[in-house]
Amino acid sequence: MIISSTQNPKIKHLLELQQKSSERRKCGLFVVEGKRELEHCIAAGYEVESIYTLDDSPFANRPTYMVSPHVYERIAYRGSTEGIIAVVRAKKHTLDHLRPSLTEKATDGALFIVLERVEKPGNLGAVLRSADAAAATAVIVCDPLTDLYNPNLIRASIGACFTVPTVACTSEECIAWMKQNGVQILTAQLQDSHLYYDTDMTLPTAIVMGTEATGLTDLWRQAADAHIRIPMQGRLDSLNVSVSAAILLFEAVRQRNSVAGRI
Amino acid sequence: MIISSTQNPKIKHLLELQQKSSERRKCGLFVVEGKRELEHCIAAGYEVESIYTLDDSPFANRPTYMVSPHVYERIAYRGSTEGIIAVVRAKKHTLDHLRPSLTEKATDGALFIVLERVEKPGNLGAVLRSADAAAATAVIVCDPLTDLYNPNLIRASIGACFTVPTVACTSEECIAWMKQNGVQILTAQLQDSHLYYDTDMTLPTAIVMGTEATGLTDLWRQAADAHIRIPMQGRLDSLNVSVSAAILLFEAVRQRNSVAGRI
Repeated sequence: MIISSTQNPKIKHLLELQQKSSERRKCGLFVVEGKRELEHCIAAGYEVESIYTLDDSPFANRPTYMVSPHVYERIAYRGSTEGIIAVVRAKKHTLDHLRPSLTEKATDGALFIVLERVEKPGNLGAVLRSADAAAATAVIVCDPLTDLYNPNLIRASIGACFTVPTVACTSEECIAWMKQNGVQILTAQLQDSHLYYDTDMTLPTAIVMGTEATGLTDLWRQAADAHIRIPMQGRLDSLNVSVSAAILLFEAVRQRNSVAGRI
Repeated sequence: MIISSTQNPKIKHLLELQQKSSERRKCGLFVVEGKRELEHCIAAGYEVESIYTLDDSPFANRPTYMVSPHVYERIAYRGSTEGIIAVVRAKKHTLDHLRPSLTEKATDGALFIVLERVEKPGNLGAVLRSADAAAATAVIVCDPLTDLYNPNLIRASIGACFTVPTVACTSEECIAWMKQNGVQILTAQLQDSHLYYDTDMTLPTAIVMGTEATGLTDLWRQAADAHIRIPMQGRLDSLNVSVSAAILLFEAVRQRNSVAGRI
């Protein structure tokens, strides 16, 4: 049977899950679009509830519904996703779930990106993509204004939201956890700061960034072991948050690889 | 007098300039939206042909037309641009126009980002923003598939397209110019490459990047003094081109500041 009406209850619920974070929270479900993204999602151990597809699904053993091109067009964000959209069960993203990852990386030192009050899902998705490339231990969002399953976030991350462990918690919880686990806190800020490349990032490190508009709260500034800045040498005095995160993450990569004997 | 019809010939032409690169090329005009962007544009010596505004324009001595909210909504890309849109005369972007910038920076060594066949205006705009922050000498686009005055480019660059010198030319012209001016060519590619942070970027340097899909052409690979790569340590094996550009540019910044005695 092919679902050919956008008024079908399953389709209506899928659209609600895409559009409303409240619905995602209430049901503990979210939507993944695209074959590659869904592969990363399944590899990360997520449980797929149902699949909506134009053609035969390459994902066997999961409830699958064929939809008409008209319906697909209504539920798809982009054209070239190989005709696959899935409803997936959310996971927990607490600090408690981080411990195994941390232990695993403990020899080389853990590396976290912490984003306080991040608002734009696209920015968070782009940070996740860079965090994947740098093999960061986790991305932690403190007091976030977006949820971790926003469709724009998943899309901008090109699936990194599934390959990089993510945590959502309060700033207080995060600071306590970092102190308890011996992770140094480096806050990205201009006041009283050192150049980022003059700062030792070979230790277990959390790089903490605020919003482009208002920066970090005092809570983080005071909890910091050091303040770091990227030297702004141009006229605009501004970098995108995901670009800044990548520059700082890869400086940690450089320092750690150099310590390991590369130069 | 207030322009209140979207059928007004001036408004129709402005829309054409926004939408069609062919019209921009034909007339040698383009459109800038936003007070901040227009300030950077004027500071860079561009000639403003006309200004369309909802309120009084802060830019005196330039032909200014008041438009109705209805018309403004039609010609504006975004809501919060302080009601200012301008038609501006294009400049030349040849290699010949670079020489003064190069001479100015010759003491510290020039730093270029070269993008071959860049397609997405938003990516080019984001690269320009990072190039501004790193005080790059210029951004050079070779055989580009977008023009330098695409509205998405200007918007994504938040005005860096005016603060950073830009050049459009063929790859052959660019390679010849770099060789002639003693600028080393570092191509970002995986094959036969060194880690970027093991490469000396204190010399006058051009960092050359291809498209995410197909990489660089053989022309550039063969012209290179060295091939460099960013170590991909994650599972997705991919970074956005503007993020990669920023990582490489700021490694050059780090090395040059370190040579100057900072560490």
